[in-house]
Amino acid sequence: MTFCDYQQFKKLKDLAKNPYDLTQKDHLSPERIQQMQLSALNFSLLYATERIDNQTVQALYALAEEADVKSKMAMMQKGEIINQIKGCESEKRSVLHTAMRDFFDDPIQEKTAYEAAKLAHDEYKKLDTFLQKTGEFEEIIQIGIGGSDLGPRALYIALEKYRQPKKRAHFISNVDPDDTASVLQNIDLKKSLIVVVSKSGSTLETLTNESFIREQLKKKGLKPKDHLIAVTGKGSPMDDPKQYREVFYIWDYVGGRYSATSMVGAVMLSFTLGIKQFEQILKGANAMDKHVLKAPPEDNLPLLAALLGIWNRNFLGHPTLAVIPYSQALLRFPAHLQQLDMESNGKRIDKQGNPLSYSSGPIVWGEVGTNGQHSFFQLLHQGTNVVPIEFIGFKESQYGLDIEVEGTTSQQKLLSNLFAQSIALATGKKDDNPNKQFEGNRPSSILLAQKLTPEILGSLLAFYEHKVAYQGFIWGINSFDQEGVQLGKVLAKKMISLFSGKDSFPLGEAYIQSLEKL
Amino acid sequence: MTFCDYQQFKKLKDLAKNPYDLTQKDHLSPERIQQMQLSALNFSLLYATERIDNQTVQALYALAEEADVKSKMAMMQKGEIINQIKGCESEKRSVLHTAMRDFFDDPIQEKTAYEAAKLAHDEYKKLDTFLQKTGEFEEIIQIGIGGSDLGPRALYIALEKYRQPKKRAHFISNVDPDDTASVLQNIDLKKSLIVVVSKSGSTLETLTNESFIREQLKKKGLKPKDHLIAVTGKGSPMDDPKQYREVFYIWDYVGGRYSATSMVGAVMLSFTLGIKQFEQILKGANAMDKHVLKAPPEDNLPLLAALLGIWNRNFLGHPTLAVIPYSQALLRFPAHLQQLDMESNGKRIDKQGNPLSYSSGPIVWGEVGTNGQHSFFQLLHQGTNVVPIEFIGFKESQYGLDIEVEGTTSQQKLLSNLFAQSIALATGKKDDNPNKQFEGNRPSSILLAQKLTPEILGSLLAFYEHKVAYQGFIWGINSFDQEGVQLGKVLAKKMISLFSGKDSFPLGEAYIQSLEKL
Repeated sequence: MTFCDYQQFKKLKDLAKNPYDLTQKDHLSPERIQQMQLSALNFSLLYATERIDNQTVQALYALAEEADVKSKMAMMQKGEIINQIKGCESEKRSVLHTAMRDFFDDPIQEKTAYEAAKLAHDEYKKLDTFLQKTGEFEEIIQIGIGGSDLGPRALYIALEKYRQPKKRAHFISNVDPDDTASVLQNIDLKKSLIVVVSKSGSTLETLTNESFIREQLKKKGLKPKDHLIAVTGKGSPMDDPKQYREVFYIWDYVGGRYSATSMVGAVMLSFTLGIKQFEQILKGANAMDKHVLKAPPEDNLPLLAALLGIWNRNFLGHPTLAVIPYSQALLRFPAHLQQLDMESNGKRIDKQGNPLSYSSGPIVWGEVGTNGQHSFFQLLHQGTNVVPIEFIGFKESQYGLDIEVEGTTSQQKLLSNLFAQSIALATGKKDDNPNKQFEGNRPSSILLAQKLTPEILGSLLAFYEHKVAYQGFIWGINSFDQEGVQLGKVLAKKMISLFSGKDSFPLGEAYIQSLEKL
Repeated sequence: MTFCDYQQFKKLKDLAKNPYDLTQKDHLSPERIQQMQLSALNFSLLYATERIDNQTVQALYALAEEADVKSKMAMMQKGEIINQIKGCESEKRSVLHTAMRDFFDDPIQEKTAYEAAKLAHDEYKKLDTFLQKTGEFEEIIQIGIGGSDLGPRALYIALEKYRQPKKRAHFISNVDPDDTASVLQNIDLKKSLIVVVSKSGSTLETLTNESFIREQLKKKGLKPKDHLIAVTGKGSPMDDPKQYREVFYIWDYVGGRYSATSMVGAVMLSFTLGIKQFEQILKGANAMDKHVLKAPPEDNLPLLAALLGIWNRNFLGHPTLAVIPYSQALLRFPAHLQQLDMESNGKRIDKQGNPLSYSSGPIVWGEVGTNGQHSFFQLLHQGTNVVPIEFIGFKESQYGLDIEVEGTTSQQKLLSNLFAQSIALATGKKDDNPNKQFEGNRPSSILLAQKLTPEILGSLLAFYEHKVAYQGFIWGINSFDQEGVQLGKVLAKKMISLFSGKDSFPLGEAYIQSLEKL
């Protein structure tokens, strides 16, 4: 049974012919705002400004039931083999990022998940011991790309407020040599720990940048082994205590984009924030993992977000999704979500190997508010494409340092803008001047929490992981592989061989001639 | 005559029924790569991987001629009133960002443009004198939002290699109080100059953050006036020498998103890079301005880019555009382009005030390569939406610090990946395993230059300004206003009044109740 075959699919198609009209008088009312919200686990998800009514919401929940998302989520967290495509060669793995943080209340007892959590906890204790012996270091450089970079970096930037004095992180990801060169300009290698992160131990960019740093350490008369730590899979080429001061493990059942709460994020975050703060991130993520397992569907926050996304994507037909946090600290969180969502759900076949006849994951993009208002919001309000938006907001600021100007604090101004945008996009405005006319009916939701603490951030991270997983379950796709990145890798190798004179590649030669003409 | 009425519109619609198929054997050939490129002004634009043949290219040029883009560009640079909508109230202004850098060879002689350039040059000389008297400062904080932030910040990050020792820039843009608080954590206000940038002198975020900084200066026993500089319009509330150490001027004929080469970017960039390096940015931008005026259409770089974009947007029907620079230094350049493009061309009416019956500006987004390859490229290769891509690459790195691993430098690996992605997206790959199948025909172009110097960056900035302007000319829209941001501002004010107890706003109250429930 595929997505289009579900009974509710047809019903929702019908409902989408005449979606709720937010521009009609009183259609967006205070009562609607108060009713259309789901509060759970320190969050409220407000969705009065989606083009949706109760009938549609019910049909979406029924769709989720048809797709059996409850048992699929349980299967995932128990460690059943869900990363696979039936009938063709595929990864055939469990998906156990949730086990990376299942050390708190009520851990899962099924063997696969239980053992994964135990292994993860062993690494966590190893890290605690390790950090007690490295107090002399002030800087930590994370060398990694994709999931070994985006998630950890987004979390670090989000929590700089909680940084320990004199502990700072830097990141090298790009094979562009200027990435390493510019980081080297700003640090003292003598005081630096370097975490090299690659599950396979064979990522081109990461190994190249590691060599780069080893060379620079030697040039400064420093021993690379004193400074370098590996985070990698057991038995990978990087699992080599002769080369690294310490090796921390990750496992093939934790996908890169889901790995921020594993050692991939743990080493750098615990070094800079302290391991107790890192534990709060884990706690928050774990609480969300338990929430999705235990809450009834109508109280399940990520499920509701997933369903609203499917309504906008498959039934209202919008190809993109903007995530706009009204929080400067979440500056790079959209870049993490871009990977999480687009790499998970940017798929062309279902789990039976059949090409999809419907849209899978949207194009995800975004910047923080209020900044975006002075940038691309013109198009959001008056452009010829409708862009659904997920706003994120917090009642309190992180630093608590604020100023009152004309009777309101900056935090109040920030929230005022967030709510105002949501209303403006929804209701629009008629005007005799066509340039001042706003068509409205541009859907958005708002996820609210008290304050961006490590614990709330952990929950937020897991909220999106599970939202993306639920959408994959409903679309019937495998959200946990990434075969789409392989072809580019193969051709890049050919191109590199051409540059090193080891291979011929006529198309590549044409590009090199273009370089020479510059 | 509107876009759909052009003769070539119908022809292109027909051609689009059967666009060039890049997946056929030998359809992407070395010869095609060599032929389908335009080299001019230190750049090469490679477009063999677009779904286009010579007939289509000719039709697109003919479309540009029908739309009379040559004389529209000349009108813009001469200073004629082109920022307007006929028959309704509108800004009715010239559009003269090009005059901000017209001090070099062959300046425009028409009075409006000539006088604007003279005024700009006066400010430039004033800045040179001013900077000679401020040698004691080490930090500069730019307070501004939108165009007063994104363009200048993108340029600063792109040119950190060229920074003078001990001269650093910081940015405060968001009304989120944590934006200011986190910058304050990392600087010594005593050694800091602060540039407050707002053309109107009334931008909510900027004035709030200025008050915040003034308060902090006073708390440290410092005199705000010794540290603060204004960049604003003549006669604005900020044009007040009693409040600022110096006031630099900008004018209403320079839109925020086009203002990086005016004093909006000049003060911070000249402080950090030195005014001679900033002059190189101006020189590069000016060279591109002259190029678009003088080159025949078939040699005009931004025009070709504009036409390729219109082909992908209006004829192949792709709603978004990804800009992927293979250059870590261009990390925030896509965020600048997002504003430049989406705020300019995210419009719903034409210049006669009629609602558009065709698509205007696309949704623009992007991150640097190779990082993106390990993130959202899965969707680009195998997702259910096609995303046209503009790649940007450089033959040489900026720092010149590189490492050879297995016979190739990192710079060569970087370029290998860039070219490989372009080929992979175009040709795709058949495979018996449906998960390893790539449909191909995903269009891209590559803009190449020797090295990201200040001069090349200036040209690149202007390249995109003119690309966006040409698209606006062809669509018949006004790319220079931004009425779409007004409604949100009005509602935010109502919301702020509610927070300060000065107004009632029932919808807003419903949101505040949601906050209280958290």
